[in-house]
Amino acid sequence: MTPVLFERLLIIGAGLIGSSIARAVRERRLVRTLVVADQDPAVCARVRELGFADEVTGNAAEAAREADLIIVCVPVGAMGAVAAQIGPQLKPGAILSDVGSVKGAVMSVMAPHVPAHAHLIPAHPVAGTECSGPDAGFATLFENRWCIITPPEGADETAVERLSSLWRAMGADVEVMDLRRHDLVLAITSHLPHLIAYNIVGTAADLEEDMASEVIKYSAGGFRDFTRIAASDPTMWRDIFLYNREAVLEMLGRFTEDLTALQRAIRYGDGEKLFDHFTRTRAIRRSIIEMGQETDAPDFGRLAAEKPRHEQS
Amino acid sequence: MTPVLFERLLIIGAGLIGSSIARAVRERRLVRTLVVADQDPAVCARVRELGFADEVTGNAAEAAREADLIIVCVPVGAMGAVAAQIGPQLKPGAILSDVGSVKGAVMSVMAPHVPAHAHLIPAHPVAGTECSGPDAGFATLFENRWCIITPPEGADETAVERLSSLWRAMGADVEVMDLRRHDLVLAITSHLPHLIAYNIVGTAADLEEDMASEVIKYSAGGFRDFTRIAASDPTMWRDIFLYNREAVLEMLGRFTEDLTALQRAIRYGDGEKLFDHFTRTRAIRRSIIEMGQETDAPDFGRLAAEKPRHEQS
Repeated sequence: MTPVLFERLLIIGAGLIGSSIARAVRERRLVRTLVVADQDPAVCARVRELGFADEVTGNAAEAAREADLIIVCVPVGAMGAVAAQIGPQLKPGAILSDVGSVKGAVMSVMAPHVPAHAHLIPAHPVAGTECSGPDAGFATLFENRWCIITPPEGADETAVERLSSLWRAMGADVEVMDLRRHDLVLAITSHLPHLIAYNIVGTAADLEEDMASEVIKYSAGGFRDFTRIAASDPTMWRDIFLYNREAVLEMLGRFTEDLTALQRAIRYGDGEKLFDHFTRTRAIRRSIIEMGQETDAPDFGRLAAEKPRHEQS
Repeated sequence: MTPVLFERLLIIGAGLIGSSIARAVRERRLVRTLVVADQDPAVCARVRELGFADEVTGNAAEAAREADLIIVCVPVGAMGAVAAQIGPQLKPGAILSDVGSVKGAVMSVMAPHVPAHAHLIPAHPVAGTECSGPDAGFATLFENRWCIITPPEGADETAVERLSSLWRAMGADVEVMDLRRHDLVLAITSHLPHLIAYNIVGTAADLEEDMASEVIKYSAGGFRDFTRIAASDPTMWRDIFLYNREAVLEMLGRFTEDLTALQRAIRYGDGEKLFDHFTRTRAIRRSIIEMGQETDAPDFGRLAAEKPRHEQS
């Protein structure tokens, strides 16, 4: 059994990620006392009902005073304000961490508020679903997923290791990475896919009205896949694009160049080029499945979810 | 119990779709005799092993002579050649159909080979997975999915109704549509999503080598969703883009315009525009789920497929 890793953990923001951490920590008894803070009274009430925290409060600053570890789980655009609010309260040796999908710009707004006697150790669990809010979380969300930790230069190694232990105890694999590298890697693995998904769903929504209803009707041809990530939280994603602008624009530039080349191949009937491209991309999915980051069930295993009595014949 | 709908059904091409029709038809006993033809001897051997056909042959032309219904399940680029081969063999009253994702250009290459005494009734079941070949098919693939029938002007109504009955008996909902309309609707619901998925996976594959391996590692941030449809059959998809060129280029033009607008919003920090766009797209997924064309399980129900002992807590 894993020993208690922190005396007092404060989670700020009880959305999908915050409430999943809370559930994972509680189920495995990784901390002595688990405090959840959320500025929305309705969310606090719901967290009390769900019963996955020892204490629930609307006052993050006050709750931060006694905490050994604070994990900020709010949209990246709100992190600067949260840091300003809780930074002055942090006790000596406290670790301040987060779960944001952007590191560079966000750290530069948080760092000035963190006193020298505390440790700012950013982290990003690469996990999630399209659902939001305290009801959407679950204790196994981080199992077999990566958590990327991006310690600033000269960060306290013990603090990094203590935070890593918590993520490992929740089932994650931990990787340490430079924060600029993180932002570039996430721009292609996460931010650009979301932008493209949001975009094509928007393009479909803008079609003439009768055509738009047919898009919904016949979405099983591929379109519906994109609607999943395009159903993600709008505030969270607005902030990600605003805060990771340079890396996203860089990756988007590459994507657009490549798309223009495919467009040209279609226009001029270059079947060989299309065939070569479509063959090359197959191998990548196999690698992802082999690395344990994707199910090998056809159609994401969706058929089983849709049709409980589905039988292969 | 559904009565026998056709005396002798010939399926040409035993891939995902052909072998799924065979399984569905056999399980529900919808035809008296089920013949499967495939030009690949290895596929024929496998179909014999799997045992879902009454007869298996490499000679489609010969098998076509006695068939009441022939369903061509080959890539759209091969349909003209198949029609040339079997057209002269068709007996009076025979129905020739297909399952292709493009209708306009394909019908124009098939129609000249169909004698006046037979009926060419194109069809397209909007269903599939990313897997290919005779092992990938299953009897329930068409359940609760749409099958679009695009009869040419003046088509025999009885023939259309007989074909529709077969699809309904396999669990599909049948819709009759003009073939130009079909090609435009499928360009946005299926062809463009595949092109974009193939494109972003290609962009990732072209990154510097160390970065490409990180894309695989951290793909759970969204990227892995796209690798599913980018793992689809390359020949099939090359043909679709070559044969539905105009409609795909039209939809791709709209997509690119919209993406350029989002790019500009990111560059100039227009958070309001981003937020509005991302809010609007959420509703579309809800409509798709409400229409029964998508699971409402978070993450496509993939978590359950990955982790059989997954429990929400």
